[in-house]
Amino acid sequence: MPTITSVDVCDVRFPTSLTADGSDAMNKDGDHSAVYVVLATDGTDAGGRPLTGHGITFTIGRGNDLVAEATRQLARTLVGTDVAAMAADMGGTYLSFTTDSQMRWLGPEKGVVHLALSAVMNAAWDLAGRHVGKPVWRMLADMTPEELVDVADLRYLGDVLTRDDALALLRAVEPGKAARIAELEADGYPCYTTAAGWLGYSDEKMVRLIHEQEELGLTHVKLKVGTDLEEDVRRCRLARETIGPDRALMIDANQVWDVPTAIEWVRRLAEFDPLWIEEPTSPDDILGHRKIRDAVAPVKVATGEHCHNRVMFKQFMEAGAMDFCQLDAGRLASLNEIVAVLLLAARFGVPVCPHAGGVGLCEMVQHASMLDFVAVSGTHEGRLCEYVDHLHEHFLEPVRVAGGAYQVTGEPGYNTEMRAESIARYRFPDGPYWAGVLAASPA
Amino acid sequence: MPTITSVDVCDVRFPTSLTADGSDAMNKDGDHSAVYVVLATDGTDAGGRPLTGHGITFTIGRGNDLVAEATRQLARTLVGTDVAAMAADMGGTYLSFTTDSQMRWLGPEKGVVHLALSAVMNAAWDLAGRHVGKPVWRMLADMTPEELVDVADLRYLGDVLTRDDALALLRAVEPGKAARIAELEADGYPCYTTAAGWLGYSDEKMVRLIHEQEELGLTHVKLKVGTDLEEDVRRCRLARETIGPDRALMIDANQVWDVPTAIEWVRRLAEFDPLWIEEPTSPDDILGHRKIRDAVAPVKVATGEHCHNRVMFKQFMEAGAMDFCQLDAGRLASLNEIVAVLLLAARFGVPVCPHAGGVGLCEMVQHASMLDFVAVSGTHEGRLCEYVDHLHEHFLEPVRVAGGAYQVTGEPGYNTEMRAESIARYRFPDGPYWAGVLAASPA
Repeated sequence: MPTITSVDVCDVRFPTSLTADGSDAMNKDGDHSAVYVVLATDGTDAGGRPLTGHGITFTIGRGNDLVAEATRQLARTLVGTDVAAMAADMGGTYLSFTTDSQMRWLGPEKGVVHLALSAVMNAAWDLAGRHVGKPVWRMLADMTPEELVDVADLRYLGDVLTRDDALALLRAVEPGKAARIAELEADGYPCYTTAAGWLGYSDEKMVRLIHEQEELGLTHVKLKVGTDLEEDVRRCRLARETIGPDRALMIDANQVWDVPTAIEWVRRLAEFDPLWIEEPTSPDDILGHRKIRDAVAPVKVATGEHCHNRVMFKQFMEAGAMDFCQLDAGRLASLNEIVAVLLLAARFGVPVCPHAGGVGLCEMVQHASMLDFVAVSGTHEGRLCEYVDHLHEHFLEPVRVAGGAYQVTGEPGYNTEMRAESIARYRFPDGPYWAGVLAASPA
Repeated sequence: MPTITSVDVCDVRFPTSLTADGSDAMNKDGDHSAVYVVLATDGTDAGGRPLTGHGITFTIGRGNDLVAEATRQLARTLVGTDVAAMAADMGGTYLSFTTDSQMRWLGPEKGVVHLALSAVMNAAWDLAGRHVGKPVWRMLADMTPEELVDVADLRYLGDVLTRDDALALLRAVEPGKAARIAELEADGYPCYTTAAGWLGYSDEKMVRLIHEQEELGLTHVKLKVGTDLEEDVRRCRLARETIGPDRALMIDANQVWDVPTAIEWVRRLAEFDPLWIEEPTSPDDILGHRKIRDAVAPVKVATGEHCHNRVMFKQFMEAGAMDFCQLDAGRLASLNEIVAVLLLAARFGVPVCPHAGGVGLCEMVQHASMLDFVAVSGTHEGRLCEYVDHLHEHFLEPVRVAGGAYQVTGEPGYNTEMRAESIARYRFPDGPYWAGVLAASPA
């Protein structure tokens, strides 16, 4: 039986600040970065290759080393773990990391230690999927309702979602599962793009990218806003003119406003008919989002990429503070917490439109959306998974987008394995790229 | 003019798990620890001694190194800072740390990076107080309303507390300030103790400690609960019999329950007439606390030691989810955020009863309570600052408790300087205490 023999964690940073890829009103110069975990085993996969697991969490540069070190401290307990036993009890594997009260104090369940748990468990999920020979969405979709609920972290949710509630939700969508899998394998899962809308891009680049994305069937367009109102008016007008009246335009402020400012600003941009305003204020402000939602209707409110755990999602949904749930595969502590949030979303009827972009987030969240469609909400109506055509070249099994949809790639695991040459070059601070930058910068 | 010449950050851990000091239902074996920051300058204080600043944040052991490293990364920008300019613009000094969007991504404003900002700014406050020759509570109390509001971090609070609202609150309590300072210097600020109630203590030890605390005038008693209901019934009965019917008993579950369990458990313990139930569930669960509060009245709900920033406090208060605000001087990002929370509490009429214990928390929060009394709420009616007689021997200017109150110690700064011999012995992992423990433990 294969056993985990070692854990390797590294800090990989891509210099995206040089091209303003990913720039927004809050984050003007991020270097999209990954804490990358490799679990090695003494086993082989069905193809006879070494059986390994690869996990990622995402940051935007400085401090990635802090998450990497937290990840090392958490992950080392996995060495010696029997892979088959782990894959058969992913709920128990996850819970084993929640019993260290000393580490818990540093959150709890938020910030650096929670990002680190995500990286560790994402690697465990990739390993489990490879061990059973399935993509993780399919591994989860093939579970019974009882098995799937056992994966989910339902702690602290009992006032709105009991285990029995969760089982009832899953049983209700059991019929039609096979048909949905067939539909998914034929058509993929619908997505939208943020690629054209970064704040640092010129008008010409924005318009060109909008047209390029159309060729991939990506008809929704999302723009970053929030730095200068008149500039936002101008860019929204240009985007709306470019896409015409019928296609969806979304806007994203990345947390720069307080509640009164958000309301005022969004009302001014409402003439361009945005589908949603994303992250209008502090990601912790449940009641503030509710106020904004009430004030800017019919513009809807989307948030979640910085929503740090399932307890926050529970409240956002219960309070009627979020129209779209943008969970993040690197901020929530892996599929164990994501499944809980999918169940909450089904319970409250909130469509899940995961956050992606960054490094590896597209690769991971496609699994969350596919699982949601097949086995949890049972629909993708009114739902879109985010997509950014960015940094996929560093992955061995990158996402495939065609016809405006994430296509099922079919490989076992979580699509999270990065190319060895990418890691070697962009490893921080000792890979040749950063060693060169650091040598050239003043001390 | 004195300038900050260097920053030293160290990881200090006290082996409190050996004696169950600090043990509760969630945290059974914490080693009370500090990230300790020393800001050195080229100046001297009024007494001719080197002018320095000392800051602390508190954790319970493992992972303290992560906070220490985050603290190093943040604090190094202070080297070269002019102390007089810094002390005259503590609001600006604080805001300078909030502009690094890459570090912000790791929270935002929560977890390891926020704990680290607390340590850095606590050191800056200690240095500022020593520079102006005042205890920090007095430095703040002597400010004009405009100056005090400029210290406070009011970002994201605009929907419930504008700058003008804050100024009006402060101006309303200006009359009587001098009389309150005189009262405070004569009588101190009232406190209560948790020293007797840790979960790992025997009945005999609990009763003995209750009687010992009485001699200090500490008549309120707080017990940890939440592991075993029948055991809690027995211990609460014993404590109530020991203190009689008229003194206040508080209970503290340290987040172990979900909402339905909290309601059931507290209703069972209500016969012992607890004043409050503290941390009944996840510290993130604003709406859950509100449900518990509604269900267990007249038992009140106290929380806040894990409430990670002012945006969360804003919502807890607006939602009517907290009867007592237990802010923490190591979890909030220093007095800049604490002043904002004191203003919110005054706005909503919520009494502030800060969390303390740990390492250095008593030393710091006494300043928050004293400031609240003198210049923000203008009263200490129905308010108590927590006190634990624990680890004060490691401080040069420890708290002084007499007559059931924190007495004004009068030294300039934040009472946060630790003894060099304590740091040397308990430094992790290289101080002689931990070097010995690690050498003796299996690899």
